[in-house]
Amino acid sequence: MDLLLLLLLSLALSAVAVAHHEHLLPRPLILDPLPETLLSDRFDDDPFLVCNAWRFAGEANNLSPWKTIPPECAAFVADYATGRAYAVDLEMVAREAGAYARDVGLGGDGMDAWVFDVDETLISNLPYYAEHGFGLEVFNVHEFDKWVDEASAPAIPSSLKLYKEILDLGIKIVLLTGRSEGQRHVTIYNLNNAGYENWEKLILRGEHDHGKTATTYKSEKRSELEIEGYRILGNSGDQWSDLQGFPTASRSFKLPNPMYYIP
Amino acid sequence: MDLLLLLLLSLALSAVAVAHHEHLLPRPLILDPLPETLLSDRFDDDPFLVCNAWRFAGEANNLSPWKTIPPECAAFVADYATGRAYAVDLEMVAREAGAYARDVGLGGDGMDAWVFDVDETLISNLPYYAEHGFGLEVFNVHEFDKWVDEASAPAIPSSLKLYKEILDLGIKIVLLTGRSEGQRHVTIYNLNNAGYENWEKLILRGEHDHGKTATTYKSEKRSELEIEGYRILGNSGDQWSDLQGFPTASRSFKLPNPMYYIP
Repeated sequence: MDLLLLLLLSLALSAVAVAHHEHLLPRPLILDPLPETLLSDRFDDDPFLVCNAWRFAGEANNLSPWKTIPPECAAFVADYATGRAYAVDLEMVAREAGAYARDVGLGGDGMDAWVFDVDETLISNLPYYAEHGFGLEVFNVHEFDKWVDEASAPAIPSSLKLYKEILDLGIKIVLLTGRSEGQRHVTIYNLNNAGYENWEKLILRGEHDHGKTATTYKSEKRSELEIEGYRILGNSGDQWSDLQGFPTASRSFKLPNPMYYIP
Repeated sequence: MDLLLLLLLSLALSAVAVAHHEHLLPRPLILDPLPETLLSDRFDDDPFLVCNAWRFAGEANNLSPWKTIPPECAAFVADYATGRAYAVDLEMVAREAGAYARDVGLGGDGMDAWVFDVDETLISNLPYYAEHGFGLEVFNVHEFDKWVDEASAPAIPSSLKLYKEILDLGIKIVLLTGRSEGQRHVTIYNLNNAGYENWEKLILRGEHDHGKTATTYKSEKRSELEIEGYRILGNSGDQWSDLQGFPTASRSFKLPNPMYYIP
């Protein structure tokens, strides 16, 4: 009878977990642009204001999935990404994350963890995107994989500083990336070259993870971490799909990324 | 035995619900500023870039709770709130919400619902905040209540347009506000004056809702709506506490608000 009860309870709990999971993955996965995509058809304003509003809408997770940046915002995004604005935005988020990490209070049992995404979170693919219109071209996985093999993506300086602060606090670092298991070695090589080391785990997409959205894949991996006993105090990522789903970290930090969207 | 099972199952489910609930309310509720609040101590950049980065960090929910805007950003926020930038940001979010509402597909049974917050979502208290430093002064509930009693807050034009579109689609509108039940009449009067009518429900804080965070109070009310059979397709609010917690809407839309933060 105890066994039956246990079975029923765990069935009920799974049903709730699945319901929650689906509930927390509500965004449409259509990447086809909506009929009215041309911002210039919609607004009769200063292009800076309109593109800044588009960027705000993306960062606040208000936009439907998008495949490329709006053509009218090509110069805006290039200026943003290569100028101080992007760097200052990145620094602001890293400082907020650092202040929280210093303040949060640790369990002291070695199970406090912080999850970092890799691309556009720890290392920057700006040299690649500079050659591909800063998001104006539709993403080409073959071209991008060639770039990944070069293992030459530089560190994002404010993220490297945060990474070291978090390590020094005694928080375990888990790297959770949408890159494939087959890219493990170049990824480690690139991360080390950029100054990152001493992480606890580096999780890449295995053979059963392909075809899943990033939200699903990353949620499953965070769930496994919690089952292993980790408390995920913080999660830093440049995509909402790094941060949403279930379980969430105690606090999530959204780094800016105006160049691409991953569901 | 069946009853015992049912009891145990429902206990287990409640425990899960509570755990989820707490899990989804993870932000610290300290409103005391962190030690390093002065942005000018942190950045040696163009104030526009720094204040825009602070605004982005707020809109992406990266900031710790804050009581007032950073003093160095007083002019920035005043310019933003009174100029076209705020209006364009609001229009962008309303258009995304409208495109989603037209596309989402309705149940057709009258139980499709959209939740709107009221202040800074449907109507604007800018005339009040213009007299109080656009968020530079610590919020004074007595002063604000006097303003509420005037019932003269104007509509946010893009929100009024969205509201009418959503009504026309046959979606039921639920207004969910942090205002008190005692302010029901002035709120209805103000909303009607601003052009809003034909909502399904107007939910205000009742006597048992005081002292709860907005996230808790609004989550509880969304939960009650779902128990009543409503499907919450969309939720529009200017605070993350309008949108977070459990249950969430199928899609949430964060309107900009650089003037105040509600936990």
